[in-house]
Amino acid sequence: MKPVKVGLLGLGTVGTGVVRIVEGHQEDLQSQVGSSIVIEKILVQNKSKSRSISIDASKLTEDPWEIIGNPDIDVIVEVMGGIGSTKEYIMEALSRGKHVVTANKDLMALHGPEILAKAQENGCDVLYEASVAGGIPIIRTLVEGFSSDRITKIMGIVNGTTNYILSKMSMEGASYDAVLKEAQELGYAESDPTSDVEGLDAARKMTILATLGFRAKVALEDVSVQGMSKVSKEDILYAKRLGYEVKLLGIAERQDDQFSISVQPTMVKQSHPIASVNGVYNAVYVYGEAVGETMFYGPGAGELPTATSIVSDLVAVVKNLKLGVNGKQGVLTYKEKKLKSDEQISSKYFLLLHVDDRAGVLAQITQIFAEYEVSLESVLQQPNPVNPDAEIIVITHDANKAAINKVLARFESLDVIRKVKSVYRVEG
Amino acid sequence: MKPVKVGLLGLGTVGTGVVRIVEGHQEDLQSQVGSSIVIEKILVQNKSKSRSISIDASKLTEDPWEIIGNPDIDVIVEVMGGIGSTKEYIMEALSRGKHVVTANKDLMALHGPEILAKAQENGCDVLYEASVAGGIPIIRTLVEGFSSDRITKIMGIVNGTTNYILSKMSMEGASYDAVLKEAQELGYAESDPTSDVEGLDAARKMTILATLGFRAKVALEDVSVQGMSKVSKEDILYAKRLGYEVKLLGIAERQDDQFSISVQPTMVKQSHPIASVNGVYNAVYVYGEAVGETMFYGPGAGELPTATSIVSDLVAVVKNLKLGVNGKQGVLTYKEKKLKSDEQISSKYFLLLHVDDRAGVLAQITQIFAEYEVSLESVLQQPNPVNPDAEIIVITHDANKAAINKVLARFESLDVIRKVKSVYRVEG
Repeated sequence: MKPVKVGLLGLGTVGTGVVRIVEGHQEDLQSQVGSSIVIEKILVQNKSKSRSISIDASKLTEDPWEIIGNPDIDVIVEVMGGIGSTKEYIMEALSRGKHVVTANKDLMALHGPEILAKAQENGCDVLYEASVAGGIPIIRTLVEGFSSDRITKIMGIVNGTTNYILSKMSMEGASYDAVLKEAQELGYAESDPTSDVEGLDAARKMTILATLGFRAKVALEDVSVQGMSKVSKEDILYAKRLGYEVKLLGIAERQDDQFSISVQPTMVKQSHPIASVNGVYNAVYVYGEAVGETMFYGPGAGELPTATSIVSDLVAVVKNLKLGVNGKQGVLTYKEKKLKSDEQISSKYFLLLHVDDRAGVLAQITQIFAEYEVSLESVLQQPNPVNPDAEIIVITHDANKAAINKVLARFESLDVIRKVKSVYRVEG
Repeated sequence: MKPVKVGLLGLGTVGTGVVRIVEGHQEDLQSQVGSSIVIEKILVQNKSKSRSISIDASKLTEDPWEIIGNPDIDVIVEVMGGIGSTKEYIMEALSRGKHVVTANKDLMALHGPEILAKAQENGCDVLYEASVAGGIPIIRTLVEGFSSDRITKIMGIVNGTTNYILSKMSMEGASYDAVLKEAQELGYAESDPTSDVEGLDAARKMTILATLGFRAKVALEDVSVQGMSKVSKEDILYAKRLGYEVKLLGIAERQDDQFSISVQPTMVKQSHPIASVNGVYNAVYVYGEAVGETMFYGPGAGELPTATSIVSDLVAVVKNLKLGVNGKQGVLTYKEKKLKSDEQISSKYFLLLHVDDRAGVLAQITQIFAEYEVSLESVLQQPNPVNPDAEIIVITHDANKAAINKVLARFESLDVIRKVKSVYRVEG
């Protein structure tokens, strides 16, 4: 079989990793697919920039159409990121019958169904394993490994930056600001960390996972998002004392045909397998009606882990090319999308309240919980170590989100409560 | 498309689970493969036995040839276990062009390459995800998810019975005999537990994983096996005190093109992700040159988890049927098999020695380690709490297995050593 020719869009960290793996593992790859895989052309912003790998200068181009318009190129590997012109390149490549492998979570979260429909129309593959949880083959697992099961819950630590920050805060008792600064110095966090710490990056990945796990066209705006920049070292200390860790979790749940998806800092019981996932690692916990509890753990980012997922997708595309079955395996039949209302979303909650230290306070507070039928698992009142308030810690039984919001609204106007210090969803 | 007809060999726990999932998830399955999946005929030992699910009596047969010889049946699902006649049925089914899904680790560990060659010859699929780690899609992960990577280490907790026993011993400080008895009463251990506790079951699974991970025809006899029936509660106590857990680990390692595979009780550092896998759960840790550390966690056995893997394989077979590509995806090119000698197998070791409590003993012992160039990471000498001996605990740096065996042989004839109480490989 003649060599398979690949056009690479982007030569940043991940693109460099793709070149390294395709060249370094060429013999292994050939033995799997029966032909060589050649990176024919690479789109870069600046051809004359110096690079960490040596690449034949004639392969570099600053003109995307030299790749997309090249009839010899069979597969486009997109690692340039972005949405606007990137989407245009991919749609055009598909319409010209080129297969696409991409690591672009933003693009797939926002335009996945449209891109996949275009691919199907043109008999092309679009694979995107690297878009979620870098080195963990979680998309393959959801689509193929659990094809016979009904997945009812997906919980993911899908952002390495925030998990690094929360792990450090937990292990060293350090503050958010101090750890964020350190993470920025180490290159684990961007100079503008908004997308990570406000949960947007995780929301995009949960959109992709929920779409596949529930086989429904989930949109980014279906995800209720709360960031982790307000998590304090005190919160983490309380969590640990009660046997919990604080993690920024993406949680997608299904009951019958209704579902809810959220991203928020969550207290996770230490005995839950996802509680011990630390540092920049990612993990996705999947609960299926038949299989029960499973978890998939690995690096969430990085040059070579992400490139591994991309090249494994490339191998799948080339195998399909040999078999003549491109564009057929990834077709999803989508179910109708029904989102749960806040009344239907149920979980346990942790609340930390600063209250006046006088008689009858606890009675007033528990009365409000009772009015909205929120029952309590545990209540702890103690003097506040630094000021004359008292602290009340409440962990509820399963309660619906609407009821909790009503309780919190009532607390706003309750004189004896000086401050609702923290509210966390509780899992495990 | 006309219904796909399945012949089921065996209707024990897992077979019952397959029937439940195929019937219960029929709508989901149809939406994925575009045709219904019908269990046409089921081989049982006794047609008149009462069962936990209601099944049309006309589907049951005691004659395997009613299934294997039935030209309407497209796929055989084998969950009867055993090797002798089971292999005969599968080979005959393949030669008649039927695809096979099996959960039979014994058969695949002993005759995998022969069965896969027969399948290829006849253009048939043989899928066996359920044969290792029940509900965890680890075979798919190794073959497809990491197809572009070079896997250098696979460590597995692949036997739930022994992991249940070791977890209980660790958590409750109980003895092996007491926990085994309890596990037998709960149905987690067989009345004859030999295959589990002596590591044979784990060795079969490691044969399958190493064959796929290293793409080499690994044979069961290539696995060096040591059981866990001699692990004492004292050993576990020492391990915990030093920051380790004792796990029955299958370890497959590759360096360049040479590899070694073993199953043995191993001290695993508590910070390693596999150390916190408890109870009947399984986990497989995979290290790839590019991807780095990953781990896959889930139920290792049980009716529905195992059946999930089987039916997901069935879905893959039916998709291939639709695409007309059966018998093509699973073809492996095997590398030449080169096993490491004991001189080339390197790891850290833990030794617990009972010695005479007098001057110069430690000097004699450390002298012997030095002679064989085994360097020591830590040494602890303390009085034995129950008798007049002293105890010496040694953790070595990386040492080769041959050198450790020579040290142990010398210890045999050393007067001051009363007993070599325990020797463990150390990981993490």
